[in-house]
Amino acid sequence: MTEPAPVFTSGVDHERLTAQLRFVLEVDKLKRILRRNLLIDGSRRENDAEHSWHLAVSARVFAEYAPAGTNIEHVVEMLLLHDIVEIDAGDTFVYDTGASGSQMERECLAADRIFALLPSDQAVHARALWDEFEARETAEARFAKAVDRLAPMLANWHTDGGTWVQFGVSKDQVLEKVKIISEGSEALGAYAVALIDDAERRGYLGRS
Amino acid sequence: MTEPAPVFTSGVDHERLTAQLRFVLEVDKLKRILRRNLLIDGSRRENDAEHSWHLAVSARVFAEYAPAGTNIEHVVEMLLLHDIVEIDAGDTFVYDTGASGSQMERECLAADRIFALLPSDQAVHARALWDEFEARETAEARFAKAVDRLAPMLANWHTDGGTWVQFGVSKDQVLEKVKIISEGSEALGAYAVALIDDAERRGYLGRS
Repeated sequence: MTEPAPVFTSGVDHERLTAQLRFVLEVDKLKRILRRNLLIDGSRRENDAEHSWHLAVSARVFAEYAPAGTNIEHVVEMLLLHDIVEIDAGDTFVYDTGASGSQMERECLAADRIFALLPSDQAVHARALWDEFEARETAEARFAKAVDRLAPMLANWHTDGGTWVQFGVSKDQVLEKVKIISEGSEALGAYAVALIDDAERRGYLGRS
Repeated sequence: MTEPAPVFTSGVDHERLTAQLRFVLEVDKLKRILRRNLLIDGSRRENDAEHSWHLAVSARVFAEYAPAGTNIEHVVEMLLLHDIVEIDAGDTFVYDTGASGSQMERECLAADRIFALLPSDQAVHARALWDEFEARETAEARFAKAVDRLAPMLANWHTDGGTWVQFGVSKDQVLEKVKIISEGSEALGAYAVALIDDAERRGYLGRS
């Protein structure tokens, strides 16, 4: 863990500020966690930090496709934090059924450690956001997850099939993820279906 | 520019969705724009997209150090968009006084092009956010800029002086940037002063 500079700031709760700095320095490591998919221009693999930024921007742009009454600020807050557990747990490829088994356990341990770096009130708040995202029981969590699932499909379509081709992913496997998009946003789900149909026509998807 | 997949989604305004996708695909390029400063672990230079993510998280964590009544959601929204103009204009090093002269002109042209990819209502909204950030006249913009200025100071301190050492930056030059932090947040400004004093003791800063 990276320790903050040993300096004292007058007029603030020193212990609290130090805990906050410790968290801010620690989560910098998310920039080193690589995902499977490439950037849209195909130049290299995407990392979790820039991915989280892109999702937050996308959630704002696509806000009108969330169910009426969805709190977009809350969606953005969830998306900013949703992958932080991967600093310890690593990225689990969405079609890797072997690794998915232990994923939740590894990610919970990571959440226990990383969010607890924050002062306790902020730690409880951040952990609740992550739990909400994972549970996918609120409109906000379902929309956040929809945006998260759409992003690698866009990346794959724009890189000649990307990880679909690389790992021989079938149309049925992708359509299971499309269902998660549709549950968060009817319009984004419909777009994803059209995109996957087109990807199939182009030969980017394997047979089931 | 990257064109969205030529697919049609029923039940939505096709032209509007296409414009939104064009923007989302275009801003992916921010992941390729490198800043001068390194990651906290010193392993490589930081890019603008992951930097923007880190600022958005930091603004949330440090929210209590913004003046009372500051709308943090608005701060986060500004920070998510604040560097997008650098896709065309490139990153201007904060101590490069030569490049700073033409920076505003280049960035305005970039804003004209990139935000206009969005449907017009969203383009106007995004451009207003960027203008607000640059003008630094609201509490939200001043706090956003404070968080933006603090981040490379943390990176430099944690990488044995980083760009301060690399480019021979003096304490007086850094203290000018600290003033911008103090104008957005008294507490973060006080922390930055303490950090810079410590950096000077460690020999990270040149003489004026």
